[in-house]
Amino acid sequence: MTGTGKVYLIGAGPGAVDLMTLRAVRMLKEADAVVYDRLVSSEILDLAPAAAQMVPVGKAPKCHTVPQDRINEILVELAESGLTVARLKGGDPLIFGRGSEEAAHLEACGIAVEYAPGITAAQGMAAWTGVPLTHRGLATGVRYVTGHRARDARLDLDWKSLASQDTTLVIYMGAANIAEIALRLMGEGMPGALPVLAISNATTPREARLVSRLDRIGLDIAETPMRAPVLFVIGHVVSLYRGMPIPVAEPVAEAAVMAGE
Amino acid sequence: MTGTGKVYLIGAGPGAVDLMTLRAVRMLKEADAVVYDRLVSSEILDLAPAAAQMVPVGKAPKCHTVPQDRINEILVELAESGLTVARLKGGDPLIFGRGSEEAAHLEACGIAVEYAPGITAAQGMAAWTGVPLTHRGLATGVRYVTGHRARDARLDLDWKSLASQDTTLVIYMGAANIAEIALRLMGEGMPGALPVLAISNATTPREARLVSRLDRIGLDIAETPMRAPVLFVIGHVVSLYRGMPIPVAEPVAEAAVMAGE
Repeated sequence: MTGTGKVYLIGAGPGAVDLMTLRAVRMLKEADAVVYDRLVSSEILDLAPAAAQMVPVGKAPKCHTVPQDRINEILVELAESGLTVARLKGGDPLIFGRGSEEAAHLEACGIAVEYAPGITAAQGMAAWTGVPLTHRGLATGVRYVTGHRARDARLDLDWKSLASQDTTLVIYMGAANIAEIALRLMGEGMPGALPVLAISNATTPREARLVSRLDRIGLDIAETPMRAPVLFVIGHVVSLYRGMPIPVAEPVAEAAVMAGE
Repeated sequence: MTGTGKVYLIGAGPGAVDLMTLRAVRMLKEADAVVYDRLVSSEILDLAPAAAQMVPVGKAPKCHTVPQDRINEILVELAESGLTVARLKGGDPLIFGRGSEEAAHLEACGIAVEYAPGITAAQGMAAWTGVPLTHRGLATGVRYVTGHRARDARLDLDWKSLASQDTTLVIYMGAANIAEIALRLMGEGMPGALPVLAISNATTPREARLVSRLDRIGLDIAETPMRAPVLFVIGHVVSLYRGMPIPVAEPVAEAAVMAGE
């Protein structure tokens, strides 16, 4: 080892291996150590070099296995020992990924950081189901928000602003609070009949989905709980859903070959 | 040729070849014909098979070279002649890409469609500059809208809803209207000092950028016009910008090798 290593902050995408970018795969293959979240699949972890040190720091809901401060320390320790570190996150590291917090800590310690963006869960949902995030006449824009709240805290969202029917609203980490979210949106004038798609693990064989509407989604999710992470897509674009999965899956082995195995 | 072909609706991502997904590259390499937009770079087109028929249908601002109806027809004609068609778009086909319009037309004609999502220009900007799209304490969500309007039409956006400081606002296709957009947002209470990053061709060697604030961006862009497409990032996350590009570029040749050349 000569000198300090570096950290790649990598978006692993929504789940399917072949939805990773070429850059993400290259960075992962260069890694001496891989620090990964719970939502990164084993198929993706298998792309890491066999000799790489694998460090799980996964967070389960209400059970933060490794606190963020400790994750920051682990990344610094590994890089300072001269290693090239792949920090793997589901989706994109700069959208709900705390990538910029980790980068700030690393750069303050003099450690170089590079990013690989990742396909978001919302984009994975769209490519998987055919439900677009924007569509002329149905949605002029799209918005991602998080429906998670710290324990016992209030859901502190700008409800007036969120209640805009011309924008597709995508809620991350909202399964525990979707009933309240739906009520508040209706309270600001969103129609109860507005369609809602709930989807879990889109782009993977573990996928599950539920089509509902704003005035029923709370009850529907209570009656048919879905495995985390659940994404909620709220808006008129969901009316384009036709119930058939788009056949986009491909064998993992082929994706690995594509990545230069 | 036996029977009808199919169409791959492919997101080419923000510009850099290595920000394409493995799936996008695989689909492009399978193509007999490639129908592509103006914003897809020559480096990406070079990944298509040498024998593939290349069909440009690029749209320049105020100069729609090929109308959408004609693009739909071209796709149908190629697929009906038995070809595997790659329809290449910048960014993601289901975010401002009209991918779902083309898919609806194709499916109505009995032609199979598959999607490859793409990294958006906003995500490319984030990975390239280090400015995140969300960040604890600065932005709880992110929103993409289009600032384009049809000729002589009014900019018909939900200004009250857009004026939410806790959300990062990303404006696509807004260069011609950014002065009006900024004025309207300030009219709804957004502070004039809110930072704005304008960026053109992020992730490519043609990149250009400008850091400004909401009450100056209109003049700044008038004085220093930027080459289309220009992306505007409005929000407190821009305060994290430190002026240095993150060194993420890599030679095109290497990316092509990664893709299995």
